[in-house]
Amino acid sequence: MARRVKRLAVLGSTGSVGRQTLDVVRRFPDAFKVVALCAGDNTELLERQVIEFKPDYFSARNPKTGQLAGAQRISPDEAARLPSVDIVVAAMVGSVGMSSVMSALNSGKDVALANKEPVVIAGDLLLAAARTGKGRVLPIDSEPSAIWQCIQGEQSPPEKLIITASGGAFRDRTWKSLSDVTPEEALRHPTWKMGQKITIDSATLMNKAFEVIESHHLFGIPYDRIDVVIHRQSIIHSMVEFADGSVKAQMGPPDMRYPIQYALFHPERVANSALPRFDPVKTASLTFGPLDTSLYPCYQLALEYARKGATWPAVLAGADEAAVTLFLDGHIKFTDIPDAIDGTLALHRPIAAPSLEDATATAAWAYEHTMGRNRKPVVSELAGQITGAGPKPAT
Amino acid sequence: MARRVKRLAVLGSTGSVGRQTLDVVRRFPDAFKVVALCAGDNTELLERQVIEFKPDYFSARNPKTGQLAGAQRISPDEAARLPSVDIVVAAMVGSVGMSSVMSALNSGKDVALANKEPVVIAGDLLLAAARTGKGRVLPIDSEPSAIWQCIQGEQSPPEKLIITASGGAFRDRTWKSLSDVTPEEALRHPTWKMGQKITIDSATLMNKAFEVIESHHLFGIPYDRIDVVIHRQSIIHSMVEFADGSVKAQMGPPDMRYPIQYALFHPERVANSALPRFDPVKTASLTFGPLDTSLYPCYQLALEYARKGATWPAVLAGADEAAVTLFLDGHIKFTDIPDAIDGTLALHRPIAAPSLEDATATAAWAYEHTMGRNRKPVVSELAGQITGAGPKPAT
Repeated sequence: MARRVKRLAVLGSTGSVGRQTLDVVRRFPDAFKVVALCAGDNTELLERQVIEFKPDYFSARNPKTGQLAGAQRISPDEAARLPSVDIVVAAMVGSVGMSSVMSALNSGKDVALANKEPVVIAGDLLLAAARTGKGRVLPIDSEPSAIWQCIQGEQSPPEKLIITASGGAFRDRTWKSLSDVTPEEALRHPTWKMGQKITIDSATLMNKAFEVIESHHLFGIPYDRIDVVIHRQSIIHSMVEFADGSVKAQMGPPDMRYPIQYALFHPERVANSALPRFDPVKTASLTFGPLDTSLYPCYQLALEYARKGATWPAVLAGADEAAVTLFLDGHIKFTDIPDAIDGTLALHRPIAAPSLEDATATAAWAYEHTMGRNRKPVVSELAGQITGAGPKPAT
Repeated sequence: MARRVKRLAVLGSTGSVGRQTLDVVRRFPDAFKVVALCAGDNTELLERQVIEFKPDYFSARNPKTGQLAGAQRISPDEAARLPSVDIVVAAMVGSVGMSSVMSALNSGKDVALANKEPVVIAGDLLLAAARTGKGRVLPIDSEPSAIWQCIQGEQSPPEKLIITASGGAFRDRTWKSLSDVTPEEALRHPTWKMGQKITIDSATLMNKAFEVIESHHLFGIPYDRIDVVIHRQSIIHSMVEFADGSVKAQMGPPDMRYPIQYALFHPERVANSALPRFDPVKTASLTFGPLDTSLYPCYQLALEYARKGATWPAVLAGADEAAVTLFLDGHIKFTDIPDAIDGTLALHRPIAAPSLEDATATAAWAYEHTMGRNRKPVVSELAGQITGAGPKPAT
């Protein structure tokens, strides 16, 4: 096929989305060239990826050398603005991705965005950078990708977005019953295989709140025209209602390679025989239920503060990142997560129309503050990393 | 809104789709101007419509005068090619619509097509006329409209069409148990309010076969890439699977005004507060089941012969039109419908690459032959009408 090779920088290449991105790239060697791979601490996997995909550049948090299988070491921010890169795949975890995403957008790159926190922290500024730099934000999460697919070719803006939610690991339990759940239980997502942070965020539905915030920014839809419905099968990835009342839905088996591939090939669609196909008869039934926000205090809290704008969403992102880390490391209970976030929100003095520095500093403050207030007194080197100067692609 | 007024000729204005078309027009007096109204025998309703919509022209099978409330009488074919018309709404019933549809397409008009039989009888020729005349065929049936909406903005052609079927009035019964059903029972469609012919065709699923044939022609998709699934709720109007495996569905309450309005406003979408809205939580569940063709011998027969091409689909359309009339008039049983059609198919000598005349004559032959062989010996003025020179817009 006479298709122009798209040149990629994959930031967060050893994480869940990073690995699945490379799985897509592996199947289409004529369509993509990996120019840079950036990871965090999983140097072993990164090295294997460098050997396989032969990028010109790599980045790692603690590399042994300045060279890795012939690739030259650079920073993630440098990787994000390489002249030889067309699309930056932003698959880092948490607020650490902000700097590279802005670097990419300021350089006019297309950013295939899995990493929601940068949009939550500074959505307006991020979208403004995309407009100024003439790069595009290509969502690679299934829900915003579904919305993006549904609005293709439509003249009129959507009337309403209907974002679907599986309900996460504890959808059949009451909030009260969750006080003793372990990280292992919370990491068992009923329909999706994802990284740790996003799976915990799915159990609290904070991830859904972040998707609402992301969709608000990406598609320019006011919060009161974004609904969330429980859809346990994770087959309908989201729906869009248009002015005339007609609704479009995008469907498919829950597999992240679908939205990854859509973003990388857009506007083309290319067959990938490795992906499972949707079979309506085998699926038999698609259900919808109301979102009971009393089961999901994080969701309720997040939407309440997201609507306020200013630096509130940055607090949410930073505090949630800390709270999830605290839960995974055994410092707090699952049911303490919303309280930890709420405690930090209660202390925040919002900045209206924040600059990027304001927003980033707020997220870092919220992270540190949530950590500091809630951590059991044990030695940990986690604090400080998130607020350090350099970005930290996740493993 | 600074929208150019679209000028309409509504053929079949007193039928179900015609009345619903005028219901849409009534709500948007600044968007549409009715230039011509054409009906069959329901002169009383036609007269009321002429008084309300003040068209320049009208057509009726048996008019009292050459004038009706200031409108001038013309033939439906003349109405279809009026220079002052932008869109011809083809809402006649049965094969009688062919002549006006071709007249409209040959004159470069856009044709909003509810009337499936012309596409079944001569789909290739009809689409060729649209290409030559530079008019468009805008489907106003819910299933092809859903497909049309789902492919908006897509570069690649669909990989597969998944057409949904409610299953019709007798979806919970076996074929054998239907030998004594009355026309009244067959006319009780579980989800859609439609005209008589199409409701009987929905009970036999002949209507679904016609939708498959129509979609094959309109969207250029081979028959083996068009699936039909039973979807009892009639909320998902059809689905499209793309090359990458992603599926889009178009949804909404079962109301013909949706596809009518979409075709008339296309590519714009305009709010109509009279239309019910889809509420996923109230809907609660959408189900899919396999199409058991043993329950629907008409469907099976139709697809078998549709795939053969030539003049076979024209026989299907003509014979089915006769068989439905025979059933409604008490000449044959419901379960005799497929046998009546099959009997005519068995006697047909197909013409490969038929001309429009070949196809039309074949449909007329099939109608007459099916009528003649199956009618009880009673006086009836039905025969001949369908084969007459002039078109017969349905009431």
